[in-house]
Amino acid sequence: MPLFLNNEDVEQVLTMKTCMEALEVLYGELGAGKAVAAARTDIHSPTAAGSGAEAPMAHYLKSMSGAAPHFGTAALRFSSDIVAWRQAGDGMRREKIPTLPGERWLGIVLLFNTANGELLAIMNDGVIQRMRVGGTNGVATKYLARGDAESVGLIGSGWQAGTQVMAVCEARKIKKIKVYSPTRANRESFAHDMSPAVGVEITPVDSQEEAVRGVDIIITSTNSRKPFLGPEALCEGVHLSCMQRDEADDDALHRCSPLLVHTHLTENNSTSSQLNEMATPGFEFRDHPMQRGIDWKALPTLADLVAGRAKGRERAEQITGFVNKIGLGAQFAAVGAKVFEGARAKGLGREVPLDWFTQDVHP
Amino acid sequence: MPLFLNNEDVEQVLTMKTCMEALEVLYGELGAGKAVAAARTDIHSPTAAGSGAEAPMAHYLKSMSGAAPHFGTAALRFSSDIVAWRQAGDGMRREKIPTLPGERWLGIVLLFNTANGELLAIMNDGVIQRMRVGGTNGVATKYLARGDAESVGLIGSGWQAGTQVMAVCEARKIKKIKVYSPTRANRESFAHDMSPAVGVEITPVDSQEEAVRGVDIIITSTNSRKPFLGPEALCEGVHLSCMQRDEADDDALHRCSPLLVHTHLTENNSTSSQLNEMATPGFEFRDHPMQRGIDWKALPTLADLVAGRAKGRERAEQITGFVNKIGLGAQFAAVGAKVFEGARAKGLGREVPLDWFTQDVHP
Repeated sequence: MPLFLNNEDVEQVLTMKTCMEALEVLYGELGAGKAVAAARTDIHSPTAAGSGAEAPMAHYLKSMSGAAPHFGTAALRFSSDIVAWRQAGDGMRREKIPTLPGERWLGIVLLFNTANGELLAIMNDGVIQRMRVGGTNGVATKYLARGDAESVGLIGSGWQAGTQVMAVCEARKIKKIKVYSPTRANRESFAHDMSPAVGVEITPVDSQEEAVRGVDIIITSTNSRKPFLGPEALCEGVHLSCMQRDEADDDALHRCSPLLVHTHLTENNSTSSQLNEMATPGFEFRDHPMQRGIDWKALPTLADLVAGRAKGRERAEQITGFVNKIGLGAQFAAVGAKVFEGARAKGLGREVPLDWFTQDVHP
Repeated sequence: MPLFLNNEDVEQVLTMKTCMEALEVLYGELGAGKAVAAARTDIHSPTAAGSGAEAPMAHYLKSMSGAAPHFGTAALRFSSDIVAWRQAGDGMRREKIPTLPGERWLGIVLLFNTANGELLAIMNDGVIQRMRVGGTNGVATKYLARGDAESVGLIGSGWQAGTQVMAVCEARKIKKIKVYSPTRANRESFAHDMSPAVGVEITPVDSQEEAVRGVDIIITSTNSRKPFLGPEALCEGVHLSCMQRDEADDDALHRCSPLLVHTHLTENNSTSSQLNEMATPGFEFRDHPMQRGIDWKALPTLADLVAGRAKGRERAEQITGFVNKIGLGAQFAAVGAKVFEGARAKGLGREVPLDWFTQDVHP
């Protein structure tokens, strides 16, 4: 019977170690062509919530699917959000507005058993999604950072930075982490909260330059829409781990060798003309409209790396880089399988009858 | 609170008239670019059910999404099936095996409110899916058949033929229907069952030629993978309504003017290399691998027709044609909205708490 699992359930069973192990298996299978990943589908349509609003608003239905044969699972992740684009300091930023009762969002992972098609679980996607983002950077770090890397400079202290720290501590024996983000209170409370969680000293510092100085691994974990990290930040032997595309600038990325990207897939984006008519000419209803001077399609992917088709670090003095870019439904098939297994073992979740989802009519 | 609706609930509230009205509005909006349709995503991965099987088998996760602004809804339809390809008389045919307890299939429509992102309903897709297939042909017939059309020749008596008959009777004042399918018992029981349902005399006949002779509208509703209807079947003034691509042959389709196609979208198909290695060279894990001598992309679509951007029938003697090809998530947003409205009014379905699907964690 399908199991409803909320974020608290997921948190109880999903460790970063488990998450990264599952992802490493997945990327090996993706590299071998065995696992299946497809482009994400984004649908933007008009919303009654947006009438009279100053910023462009839309209903945004996102879906992504994939399969992880090693785990015998497939997954469909979807979210239904009201989004608004707001002018932030560094460009237009898309925000998901918590419009549902209790100021909540709607994001779900559906997990299927590929042996018989059964729906296994219906999970909130909030916890699992940031674990797999962190874990994906973590797997890349495992392959790309120096074996003796022990210090980290982190830019960003937001809601994704915590899993980035968990992941780097899983990938290497980290002894010291410096964190910088523009607001002092944020970086201080991040250091205070996360330090005991990973058992590593985390020191808030006053500038980006101070954070990245002399470290073995640089992690950027922001929602910036304009690159802020230049090539001067990268010294011999460092590994640069970017959570998204618009953090390190072109010159910084060009210094990395090898430089790898998460995936070549991009979203399949469809937008109602009603929205386009309402928007400023040239405005695009997508998350990342900005162009970059990087030929992403020419870069090897994480799947290439794990499957041994792309080279990782070969010498201590190399500067290596990884850019996480767009998620894959297959991540949820792999990590979701481990969550489901753990939740079953602990008796977590609420069951609903499978019959509610099945039918005797040919579909 | 989200409403679980099963096929019986859907059947109670969804008439063909309602379905076609909703679809006509939708195609008008699609033609104007207001409604949003995206390509379907198909994922084929290995299945434990397929080990040792003679025919290629796979787990097949299908998803399609879209939005219908007029109704304030978006929809995500998905199905999770074990599929097998079997050699049928007319080529390889993909079958969905009812592997779930009680010999059931899993196919669901999720309906969302675009005003706040809320999940409104979780519906079995079996009834609604065949209603919208029939209804789509019905809308095309409304625009393309002669106004005085009153006789129908139907080829096929399977599980989709019933809604095709309901739809043509909604589009025109039909007085007589002839039905042919290869197995006598099937065409006889179809005629016996459907005749009272639509209030029109349905006569089973012994050959395809007899079925199409002298009728105003020809409907093909089969799962053929090889065209079986030639140009000789098409007399002046007839409208040809095909439920799928491989029923009328190239010469027959070339005789139609205008000839319209449902949509230009095609599926986004991703398959595990493990399946490809197991299959005969050249075998494709998709439903419709066959090539045709028709430039589908050059044809106007149903959305063009309803929005007035493509011409319909202009003279009584024209031979018109319509080919239904691949479904759209947006159909479920439009028809699903009417089902939800009807079910709410009648107090049907089972509610589950919306909180089960929402979260206070940013997704």
